[in-house]
Amino acid sequence: MEIYVGKSDTVTNLQPETSTKKLWEADSIAIIGASNDPLRIGGRPISYMLQRNYKGRIYPVNPKQETIQGLKAYPNVDALPETPDIAIIAVASGMVNQMLADLGKRGTRLAVILSAGFSEVGEEGKQMQEELIATAKKYGIRVLGPNTLGLYDDRQGLFSTFSSAFELYWPQPGSIAIASQSGAFALHIFCSARNRGIGIPLCVTTGNEADINVAEAMIDMVRDPEIQVIGVYLEGLSDPEKFTEALKLAKQHRKPVVVMKTGRSAIGQVAAQSHTASIAGDDLVFDAVLKEYAAVRAYSPDEFLDIAYMASKKVYPERDALGVITVSGGAGILISDVAEDMNLPMPELEEGAQKQLKEALSFAAVKNPVDCTAQVINQPALADQFLSTMLETGQYTSILGFFAHAAGTASIEAKLRPELRKAVSKYPDALFTLSLIAEKDTIARYEADGFAVFEDPVRAVRAIKAIGTLGAAFKKPDALLPFEKKTLDTLKTTPDEAQAKRLLEEAGLQGVPEAVANDAGQAGRLAEQFGFPVVMKILSPDIKHKSEIGGVILNVNSVAEVHENYGLLLQRAADHAPSANITGVLVAKQINNAVECIMGVKNDPSFGPVAMFGLGGIHVEVLKDVVLHRCPFSPETAKELILNIKSAAILQGVRGKPAVDIDALAEKFSRLSIFAAQTQDQVKSVEVNPVLAVPGEKGCYVADALIEV
Amino acid sequence: MEIYVGKSDTVTNLQPETSTKKLWEADSIAIIGASNDPLRIGGRPISYMLQRNYKGRIYPVNPKQETIQGLKAYPNVDALPETPDIAIIAVASGMVNQMLADLGKRGTRLAVILSAGFSEVGEEGKQMQEELIATAKKYGIRVLGPNTLGLYDDRQGLFSTFSSAFELYWPQPGSIAIASQSGAFALHIFCSARNRGIGIPLCVTTGNEADINVAEAMIDMVRDPEIQVIGVYLEGLSDPEKFTEALKLAKQHRKPVVVMKTGRSAIGQVAAQSHTASIAGDDLVFDAVLKEYAAVRAYSPDEFLDIAYMASKKVYPERDALGVITVSGGAGILISDVAEDMNLPMPELEEGAQKQLKEALSFAAVKNPVDCTAQVINQPALADQFLSTMLETGQYTSILGFFAHAAGTASIEAKLRPELRKAVSKYPDALFTLSLIAEKDTIARYEADGFAVFEDPVRAVRAIKAIGTLGAAFKKPDALLPFEKKTLDTLKTTPDEAQAKRLLEEAGLQGVPEAVANDAGQAGRLAEQFGFPVVMKILSPDIKHKSEIGGVILNVNSVAEVHENYGLLLQRAADHAPSANITGVLVAKQINNAVECIMGVKNDPSFGPVAMFGLGGIHVEVLKDVVLHRCPFSPETAKELILNIKSAAILQGVRGKPAVDIDALAEKFSRLSIFAAQTQDQVKSVEVNPVLAVPGEKGCYVADALIEV
Repeated sequence: MEIYVGKSDTVTNLQPETSTKKLWEADSIAIIGASNDPLRIGGRPISYMLQRNYKGRIYPVNPKQETIQGLKAYPNVDALPETPDIAIIAVASGMVNQMLADLGKRGTRLAVILSAGFSEVGEEGKQMQEELIATAKKYGIRVLGPNTLGLYDDRQGLFSTFSSAFELYWPQPGSIAIASQSGAFALHIFCSARNRGIGIPLCVTTGNEADINVAEAMIDMVRDPEIQVIGVYLEGLSDPEKFTEALKLAKQHRKPVVVMKTGRSAIGQVAAQSHTASIAGDDLVFDAVLKEYAAVRAYSPDEFLDIAYMASKKVYPERDALGVITVSGGAGILISDVAEDMNLPMPELEEGAQKQLKEALSFAAVKNPVDCTAQVINQPALADQFLSTMLETGQYTSILGFFAHAAGTASIEAKLRPELRKAVSKYPDALFTLSLIAEKDTIARYEADGFAVFEDPVRAVRAIKAIGTLGAAFKKPDALLPFEKKTLDTLKTTPDEAQAKRLLEEAGLQGVPEAVANDAGQAGRLAEQFGFPVVMKILSPDIKHKSEIGGVILNVNSVAEVHENYGLLLQRAADHAPSANITGVLVAKQINNAVECIMGVKNDPSFGPVAMFGLGGIHVEVLKDVVLHRCPFSPETAKELILNIKSAAILQGVRGKPAVDIDALAEKFSRLSIFAAQTQDQVKSVEVNPVLAVPGEKGCYVADALIEV
Repeated sequence: MEIYVGKSDTVTNLQPETSTKKLWEADSIAIIGASNDPLRIGGRPISYMLQRNYKGRIYPVNPKQETIQGLKAYPNVDALPETPDIAIIAVASGMVNQMLADLGKRGTRLAVILSAGFSEVGEEGKQMQEELIATAKKYGIRVLGPNTLGLYDDRQGLFSTFSSAFELYWPQPGSIAIASQSGAFALHIFCSARNRGIGIPLCVTTGNEADINVAEAMIDMVRDPEIQVIGVYLEGLSDPEKFTEALKLAKQHRKPVVVMKTGRSAIGQVAAQSHTASIAGDDLVFDAVLKEYAAVRAYSPDEFLDIAYMASKKVYPERDALGVITVSGGAGILISDVAEDMNLPMPELEEGAQKQLKEALSFAAVKNPVDCTAQVINQPALADQFLSTMLETGQYTSILGFFAHAAGTASIEAKLRPELRKAVSKYPDALFTLSLIAEKDTIARYEADGFAVFEDPVRAVRAIKAIGTLGAAFKKPDALLPFEKKTLDTLKTTPDEAQAKRLLEEAGLQGVPEAVANDAGQAGRLAEQFGFPVVMKILSPDIKHKSEIGGVILNVNSVAEVHENYGLLLQRAADHAPSANITGVLVAKQINNAVECIMGVKNDPSFGPVAMFGLGGIHVEVLKDVVLHRCPFSPETAKELILNIKSAAILQGVRGKPAVDIDALAEKFSRLSIFAAQTQDQVKSVEVNPVLAVPGEKGCYVADALIEV
């Protein structure tokens, strides 16, 4: 198996391709409950496989028929002339378990259970599904479903599915596969893709996931050398560990994953309850996990297909830099707007190159977007000349050309396409996209030349941005740090604030600098060490309410003032509490004008400890402006995360204020993530709120903390 | 002319339809620079009109030919047998002015100048365009262009355009018209629509807008009884007044306007310079103007068409309430997610109705989204039964049905479509949308039944939301208040802070309550009147730095304290400045823990004074969380605006805090808008920053203000 292996040297070794068959590989297939009617559940798979010339042997099983759709039928599993690799089960739910046992006994590898009436219909069904699982385990037979629309692999002509979609279309060749919990969604995407001339030769829908889940299908898709892009549809996640394994494997083998996950809104409601809840909102955690790998999320079927289609071009630039060429100034402006919205840079063309373009066409716009105007239709060589001049600068990793309907008309295509092709062939590492309107055949010709073709230029820009995300992800090393778990004796019960702060301090998250002085000179030295202003407090187990006796002095600004106040504090204690045992004077750095940050950790039931960063006040609670990442991660990752909050400008300095020490925040955030990972068996959640960072000053300090065990 | 006139009784009287011809109405048309070659600029219009059987008379003008494309040619304008209604000019730029004069002399109504080489190519071209304008004025001939792709009206077979798009497609019947500054964009949309089976029979592209602009075309489109939806593409706005007139007229005649305006990104850069600049950012103002009318903005060609198509169904529910019915649970979840994202309510079905649905199909999901499962394919009557049960409750104003590819297959369509049609026919006021995949003919049949059809359910949800916005806008009365301008003598020069605050106070924007007391008793009464705590300040023209002599006392909490402090302040003044002339003691309400708001006004060069509201601190500057509206507007409109900021929750009370007095803020915001409108000839900008509103307390106070004249 030839698989392109990325730069990472930690590639998980895949099983040799021949060692185990992939889910959809079958030399023979039995249909239990086979029907003569090609529109019935037990009839459609046979009909489809006959029409698509399934390369293996088909065995209909039906005790009441001699032949089914022209094939010899068998009365039962035992009567089959060989053990089928795969069996489709399409009988009433009550009979499924017996059929599964019969197949298991014969050694069939996989049963695709199309029958419904299991866990999706209540308690009784759930129990029947449990029985299926027990039977499958007993005989070592794998199960897809029940209540699944099945799978198809058009390359083999294998259709273990009863979807009516194939009444409309057959699959086309291509390198996109779909793994989906929803049959309806997967086949909707298939039809939509087919309508656009995009091939999806392979699709696995998992239904109730009694055994095989989407993650397992994904892993087999990574193993499939003809599959380049994996499209995933999820409603829930039965096996998060296998899912992240699949994502990791896909990234290692440079196979992009495009994910739709629905159910955000219900989760959104839960998340709204409180900000502690919201930081753990499953959907945000899921998003964070995707960001660790080469997986991008789509929010509509169109976007899902747009990205998968673009990703199937196998060009993944490691940085975003879009060059735009148009036949219309207006389209260039539109594209610039959207690129800016999406944070997709469009660098201005180098001056020398601008000059060259102006020489070629005096009234062209040459900065980027470049407008070669409708003149390119009279003078098609301009297309190659302009594109080559732009790409020669090395400034652009992707190109979007807007040629509207013009490029779709036969007379213009004949002259324009050869020129465009020249440019593409010279720059194989660039991502070339065209926005044009044409008949399907015309589009296919531009695609064969190496272009991705979109009708809507805005959708093209969004897909280009997604490819940039994938390219950057392929380049990036694994974000999670290795770590060892530990058990802290001090964490047997939920600690109080002081204990929590001490634990975090031990983990490297410094509190506000403070220390106890036993004489005025020491107090002065401490204050100098911390920096002014400081706060001074009388310390005594016998004085409960320091403020009331004047035992707390703020804004102490010099060593002289420290000395003076040291005496004053002792005097006040003596005046107001003459019998109190004085243990010293606390000198603490006074943190004024700090930016308040929040760091948190929540032990997610699916993905383990997940850390959160946001700004204090309304930012987390009202604006939900937070970033999340699984623990533990490095300070570099932490910094990237911190700079990804929407209000990062506040940390970087606004209204003339200098920046806070973002590196210090990042280091602490990383340390918190390590602490959380190490203690994940003990700690339920951590909230460090606030962490104080002062504009223009070094460091940051934990001012309050809560650890829940 | 039958035009549906909304509830408003302030409908502007349109000219009787017969009084003036619309731009595209012509009984005869001349082509100056006519060509025998049907692919040349002067040839394409003739070729198109011959192919589409133009209903009037075509007069090619070309001194070198006897006939052109089989028609008799004329050597010059004078030789024409009648005055053409419209003339297309397709000659070299240097000859255009003479041709225009010739046509003007004969009394031609409109010249469509396809020729390029005018203001778009620099100074010389600009001057040539000025000459055109002078000639047009002299003879009273109207000009479309120059440098335009022209216009077409397929209903007449009139094609004053040289677009190559008609090599690919002819227009279809429909009720959508396009008015566009960009020819390429308009024809791209036309092709995209045609690809989807959406008819755009009428399109006007305005090029350089030497005379006729998009707004004028829009007004004629409102006057056209066959046009229901007006799609507009803009890059700039040459005549804002006419544009708002067109929007107003369209709203009065219940004709929705869908607008694409590009150039946001450049403006975004300007806006980022400072927040005062950002509140006037043209694009935000433009957005605010659209929101006053029944106009929605689209951000991509697909969205533009989606909304225009949906709007052409002529159903505009006045409130949003979406009912969803699916054959797939997954699609229902996806739709719910997106509806929540878009703030489109999906009310839960009433319990009685839920029970009815459960009785009809025990395993259906019945809350909304309603899932009638694939069972609807075996039992098609469920479709009508489910939809009718949902709509009978009166809970839903729009319906989205997800039927995937199933509804597209012939066998299923035959059974399902009649059932769906039954439901539609019973509820003519509801907006019915289907998400399905099918061949174009099949889609057309569902459309003929009254459904809008989308492939992607997410795009359907977005379009439904846009229709809700239109429906609400049609219902809403005009947002602008009538007002009279006035001239304030005190506003001849930029006032200082105190003067500015006094002017605003006169306009009804109260400052922090404060007054001068001349004895302790009066001070106490004032303090009681304002409410505690108060601030007390010694007043004397001779004491510059009050604080330094202890002349400012904060946190005065009782009448007794006021009395005591009154004496104390006089004593301190006597001690520190014995010769100072004491004019009294200022007693001011002390505003603690207030939410800081910002109100502003900027006199926009296009749209006059525009008012802005946002929260203080980072909200305006970093998060750009502001709302804008042209001045003046009512307190009701002001309240709606204020509640539309993203952080409105802060005003409504977060973290257990009570709400601020939003009605008071709204009243002040409205008063500021009236002040700005009245003084618009004098005032350049107003910034009231901050306006203080305390959670749980009545009222709000101007704490600082700046007026620029």
